[in-house]
Amino acid sequence: MPVARVVVDVMLKPEILDPQGQAVQRALPRLGFEGIADVRQGKRFELEVEGPVDEAALGRIHEMAETFLANTVIEDFTVKVEKAEESK
Amino acid sequence: MPVARVVVDVMLKPEILDPQGQAVQRALPRLGFEGIADVRQGKRFELEVEGPVDEAALGRIHEMAETFLANTVIEDFTVKVEKAEESK
Repeated sequence: MPVARVVVDVMLKPEILDPQGQAVQRALPRLGFEGIADVRQGKRFELEVEGPVDEAALGRIHEMAETFLANTVIEDFTVKVEKAEESK
Repeated sequence: MPVARVVVDVMLKPEILDPQGQAVQRALPRLGFEGIADVRQGKRFELEVEGPVDEAALGRIHEMAETFLANTVIEDFTVKVEKAEESK
């Protein structure tokens, strides 16, 4: 049965302060890495989906991201189909 | 000056147990979401890079990911250039 990988990326909304990202950004020059104007840190979910990733499946994943994977009060999310492959 | 966004995705290596991903996966059926064979959770870093993202800049970001953003003993990472835009 084909298994497809769908990636849900969850990032803080731009207007929300990102202390983790700022901590990383402040540390970079001390480690010798210049030229990074901003750093934002978020979560990446890789979902292995059984069966075809059709409109219905994507709709379900969208709903899953909205209700469970992201806190949509402070976070935005994107849903991307990465690839479909035969499961081993 | 052009600002480009480079994304560093950090995921646990496949052979490493992912308790967070498993917790999400176990919760999904209870929330009515079927058909998700596996869930892996990782980190996504969005870096705003000053100046052109040429070979040298990508090399630096690769080194930054290897030494600072990822723990390469248990994690893999990928580096992707997302887009270049005129900074506001």
